[in-house]
Amino acid sequence: MGVPLRGVQVSAEPFRVGLLGFGTVGSAFAELLEQRAAEIERFNGRRPVISGVLTRTRGSFEEILEGAELIVELIGGIEPAREYLLRAMRAGKDVVSANKQLLSQHGEELFEVAREHGVRLRFEAAVAGAVPVVRVLEESLSATPIDRIHGIVNGTTNYILTEMTRGLSYAEALAAAQRSGYAEADPGDDVSGRDAAAKMAILARLAFGSPVHLDDVCYEGIEHLHGDDLEYARELGLGLKLVGTAERRAGGLSVRVHPTFLYSGHPLASVSGSFNAVTVESGTITEITLSGPGAGGRQTASAVLGDVVSVMTGGARPPAPPLALELVEDVDSAFYLHMEVADRPGVLAAVTQVLGEADVSIKSVVQRGMGERARLVMVTHPVLESRLRTAVARIGEFDFVRSTPRAIRVIEEEFT
Amino acid sequence: MGVPLRGVQVSAEPFRVGLLGFGTVGSAFAELLEQRAAEIERFNGRRPVISGVLTRTRGSFEEILEGAELIVELIGGIEPAREYLLRAMRAGKDVVSANKQLLSQHGEELFEVAREHGVRLRFEAAVAGAVPVVRVLEESLSATPIDRIHGIVNGTTNYILTEMTRGLSYAEALAAAQRSGYAEADPGDDVSGRDAAAKMAILARLAFGSPVHLDDVCYEGIEHLHGDDLEYARELGLGLKLVGTAERRAGGLSVRVHPTFLYSGHPLASVSGSFNAVTVESGTITEITLSGPGAGGRQTASAVLGDVVSVMTGGARPPAPPLALELVEDVDSAFYLHMEVADRPGVLAAVTQVLGEADVSIKSVVQRGMGERARLVMVTHPVLESRLRTAVARIGEFDFVRSTPRAIRVIEEEFT
Repeated sequence: MGVPLRGVQVSAEPFRVGLLGFGTVGSAFAELLEQRAAEIERFNGRRPVISGVLTRTRGSFEEILEGAELIVELIGGIEPAREYLLRAMRAGKDVVSANKQLLSQHGEELFEVAREHGVRLRFEAAVAGAVPVVRVLEESLSATPIDRIHGIVNGTTNYILTEMTRGLSYAEALAAAQRSGYAEADPGDDVSGRDAAAKMAILARLAFGSPVHLDDVCYEGIEHLHGDDLEYARELGLGLKLVGTAERRAGGLSVRVHPTFLYSGHPLASVSGSFNAVTVESGTITEITLSGPGAGGRQTASAVLGDVVSVMTGGARPPAPPLALELVEDVDSAFYLHMEVADRPGVLAAVTQVLGEADVSIKSVVQRGMGERARLVMVTHPVLESRLRTAVARIGEFDFVRSTPRAIRVIEEEFT
Repeated sequence: MGVPLRGVQVSAEPFRVGLLGFGTVGSAFAELLEQRAAEIERFNGRRPVISGVLTRTRGSFEEILEGAELIVELIGGIEPAREYLLRAMRAGKDVVSANKQLLSQHGEELFEVAREHGVRLRFEAAVAGAVPVVRVLEESLSATPIDRIHGIVNGTTNYILTEMTRGLSYAEALAAAQRSGYAEADPGDDVSGRDAAAKMAILARLAFGSPVHLDDVCYEGIEHLHGDDLEYARELGLGLKLVGTAERRAGGLSVRVHPTFLYSGHPLASVSGSFNAVTVESGTITEITLSGPGAGGRQTASAVLGDVVSVMTGGARPPAPPLALELVEDVDSAFYLHMEVADRPGVLAAVTQVLGEADVSIKSVVQRGMGERARLVMVTHPVLESRLRTAVARIGEFDFVRSTPRAIRVIEEEFT
């Protein structure tokens, strides 16, 4: 039995939550906590209350820390969020954070301090908003050896790609996303893949138990995609998504983010608009998929409150000490290749010879158009990325090539 | 902080699990536990071991109970599973079960005893196999007021409907399901909707906190569906699924299972084959969807082991005392109506007059074929089911009607 539980104790003493940050998410969290306090008390015997709020202009961290049992950090960014979380844990307080930057860059330090001081560190809201992927990886699947995770973990880029699938150009789709509030005025970290890379670093740590820093994640964004690629995707019956992947490869671990063609039956292929989704694959369970709205103040607030409740119920432990899997950068994938070429005799032969010499095996070829700007599209069988890149660079040097060839990964298999 | 946690304690003492039942799931569970024991110890400080196994022919329940800290019940059915679980909890042991029959018919008794004795009762595997919907409803969403759940929670019927969508008749699709091992020789509880009803009773209890007995769930199966209905579904851009619904309605709770047309963008519309999926809707989070393989020995075993780990980590509490929402049986839905009629002047007028008198408002009409066996297909606006049924019964009495009219619910809205 472990911990003695004698029914639910109804106690007069509230559960005191110190809140750091009062922006969109912070204020939504405070409001939701107030709304749900009675129901949470009914289930858990104690009523959560906000015992103090720290903003840029008011509140004292020391006083909030003193008066709270749990600290919720919704400031974002590295400092002072990192310092506050470390100090709270060193003072023996449990902490909840929604801070993906911090967790993907200083996760091991935070985990280590949580372990040392025997406190809980919860961060469901750092990845995929209210979609409970952090919890599921931590808890349900602790009994299941995970082989691979695929995730659409950035709503902005998924929104843009969905609009591009409807025929908009990248620039038009980005503008639409900005108008609808799905993209920031500066969408840099979203469209470059860096935001998704931070989230994949966090998920990979949970799924495989091995430290993964944001800097360990290879990422590629969506800025270089053309309407052409989406058009071919439709023709080939594939979806084009910005996919994060974390998987065991050759005894090590590969974590990466890049545009990816998915066969239409893949669970991520039908995820549209600003939604997020994560597919967890395992020999034991085949695969499960979790999907839902990725971000938004209320969704994030709901995930944060879920973490608070989880601490109140006594679930969740300090993270286990890390394993150390080697990070593998060069992995094999099937690729889609898009080349603009002058339509002359010998072009296809020259291209296929270069690919053949690099041991790249071709699965299908489509040639379209004619004259100086014909397009040659190929899908390859799985090949080591470095080998493919070398071949593509050589192809790019031919005088009949009219623009830089584009290579995009393809996930074709039903299940693996 | 509540419970003191000083890092992970590595103790020499194993965590003793008593196993009741050693069929497909029981043996898969024992094997998986053995495989994962070292990893679980690394995370939780104690190594789980099977301290005793009870089958029909060997083992003593008393000795197993005495020697175990936790009892896993994988016998199935009502007795003796119920008696064993009650005795285990009364002896202060935590319990894990995969028994949907028992939980949907004696859930309140089990919850009450768990509360009284301060023990944990976990049952992730009772619904949707390794898809962690029980955990998510219990934990992540405890902070979120849920409005509605839709679920495809029976893999057999989803497999059959998927095959019917490909053009097979009901009988052919059932035979295919039996050959592939997705349907039992006696598929009664699956195709009648009763199995799904049991699972929806369990999910409704978790989502809304109010007792729901299997007998409280209105259910309808798939045996009466025709290839025709699937054909119209395709034409109308709808999917046809056996959907379980639990939702707040008019201050009460409606829990039901029936064939349902879903618009193509609904997260459940693309769930195919034997997969299960559950969509949870809430004003706070919009909706999240969990999907994956519904059943299978390994998947179920994985969910059971996840529950064991969850008890080991000290998460999960005895269930809260029940609320008492009134169960509402008669709710409004949009309907698809399929009528075989003799194609004569005045038929459409007579049908629409009956519908009009019952205040059923028609959204679209398709008439096809001619002569003695024309088909008239209508989709209505939302209408109270009792009202629709009365009108359909009256229509069935006309002499120009050639077979019993069929009415199937339609979920049209994007989000509600």
